Amino acid sequence: MIFDLIIIGGGPAGITAAIYASRNNLNTLIFSENIGGMLFNKAVNVENYTGFPSINGFELANNFKKHLEVQEHVEIVEEQVEEIKKENNLFHLKTYNKEYSSRTVIVASGSKPRELNLKGEKEFLGRGVGYCPVCDGPLFKNKDVAIVGGGNAAFESAIFLSNIAKNIYIFERGEHFLADGKNQGRIMAMPNVKTYTKTDVLEIKGDKFVKSISFKQEDKIMEIELSAVFIQAGYTPKTEYLKDLVDLNERKEIIVDENMATKTEGLFAAGDITNSKVKQIIVAASLGAIAALSVYNYLLNYEQN
Amino acid sequence: MIFDLIIIGGGPAGITAAIYASRNNLNTLIFSENIGGMLFNKAVNVENYTGFPSINGFELANNFKKHLEVQEHVEIVEEQVEEIKKENNLFHLKTYNKEYSSRTVIVASGSKPRELNLKGEKEFLGRGVGYCPVCDGPLFKNKDVAIVGGGNAAFESAIFLSNIAKNIYIFERGEHFLADGKNQGRIMAMPNVKTYTKTDVLEIKGDKFVKSISFKQEDKIMEIELSAVFIQAGYTPKTEYLKDLVDLNERKEIIVDENMATKTEGLFAAGDITNSKVKQIIVAASLGAIAALSVYNYLLNYEQN
Repeated sequence: MIFDLIIIGGGPAGITAAIYASRNNLNTLIFSENIGGMLFNKAVNVENYTGFPSINGFELANNFKKHLEVQEHVEIVEEQVEEIKKENNLFHLKTYNKEYSSRTVIVASGSKPRELNLKGEKEFLGRGVGYCPVCDGPLFKNKDVAIVGGGNAAFESAIFLSNIAKNIYIFERGEHFLADGKNQGRIMAMPNVKTYTKTDVLEIKGDKFVKSISFKQEDKIMEIELSAVFIQAGYTPKTEYLKDLVDLNERKEIIVDENMATKTEGLFAAGDITNSKVKQIIVAASLGAIAALSVYNYLLNYEQN
Repeated sequence: MIFDLIIIGGGPAGITAAIYASRNNLNTLIFSENIGGMLFNKAVNVENYTGFPSINGFELANNFKKHLEVQEHVEIVEEQVEEIKKENNLFHLKTYNKEYSSRTVIVASGSKPRELNLKGEKEFLGRGVGYCPVCDGPLFKNKDVAIVGGGNAAFESAIFLSNIAKNIYIFERGEHFLADGKNQGRIMAMPNVKTYTKTDVLEIKGDKFVKSISFKQEDKIMEIELSAVFIQAGYTPKTEYLKDLVDLNERKEIIVDENMATKTEGLFAAGDITNSKVKQIIVAASLGAIAALSVYNYLLNYEQN
């Protein structure tokens, strides 16, 4: 069977693309190992997706999932795409044991947490070092923990952890935190959170488990004993396997035009994996809608070679 | 008092802009005579706003309204802006009896139904001719009605009216209907809806009320007796009062860049009033978020002259 559209990724962009594709009767397959995407890892309630004043990520992801599941002509496959090529105006996508074909593709697989390659980061991974405070935070009840990063994800993680951990240290390299005012305000009001700017983390130390973190602020080197270090330094999109088909920017994001088209005809991208500046749930969803409408228009004049 | 941000319009774009502005602690005023905007006039359930599988426009608008009402630093004013000028790097906005000042403005007032200037259209307005089938449709129970237009709004109106009216006639000038496949499929399955393409409406006739419509298909002139004609021919944004401050395209939409900035510094626009190609609720909301984040960035370096 040849699909009209294969969507890679089941986050807000992929799900919205599937909804719009279904409304236009496109036979659609969506690859996702985790419908809802990164929403499941959100540390605090989502309060900026219009229509839901305050909802936890898990619940919002479930609403998205239910919306996807009522769509006609949409098949959900819980596999990961490892290879993609275009031949005779058809795309062929390989997972670990199967091949699928489609007239068009929307890549909407988001991005994965960025690693910082700190000394000790790899060594203590899973033994105190982690990338998902929501997943692993509860293991550190009444312990001291650090967060490396100063954006919204870092601050939201700190807010989440403030009810679990004893003391929380936030380390940011730059002069200012990038988190929004509301998140910064909340953190400043918390007696058990201490923040550091202009600070380089030097090493995560331990024996079997993390025991301390050393860092340098201005010219002063310090060390704090703690049990966990969460890296919250943004995200890197997983785009290597696509590099023959798309142009990537310096952040390895897929460069798209205003219709979400890539340099390969029939191949579109949407959401956080693209070079769109604003990484927000509502924006990712919107880009998914635009991509699906572009696919629909593209297919009106489609001819197989 | 000088606001950080004034938002003109309380539809999906304006509300989302206000939510994002509030999160960044901007003192915000939003002008809206009708929070929720055109959602209140949606003829059928909204099924493509991700997270709500199927919800009527009134309910979705109320969810948006509730989300807006819990925001801090946001004042809602139910007045219409009639004039706007910029002096000393401040914007001054006039309503019928008051003046307000702000460092930045986001115009998100959407658009109003487009008039076709058909013969009889003005004459019978409110006496059979209308632009809002949801508002006026119930007056025509078991009567015959026409819809002029062939896009989603026209088809969704026909779906709504199919349970009310006796027979429904849809007239489209072009060769094809522009409504999406799902809407076209639903209409085709309805025995009491008749569709015409390549058809020009010549005149809406009547005495005190609408009595008939005459039209030309190919070279054939026909006339059908009916009681109402709903014009559903798209929307025109209300942008005349802004024309000194922004560039407009041929559709009178405000031309914005990828940050939703207009040609006037500090003046942004979002939603259906802009030249963004895709007019969808989720897209309008997304553009509101982007505009508010641009305002925030702009204010970081703001100086009053």
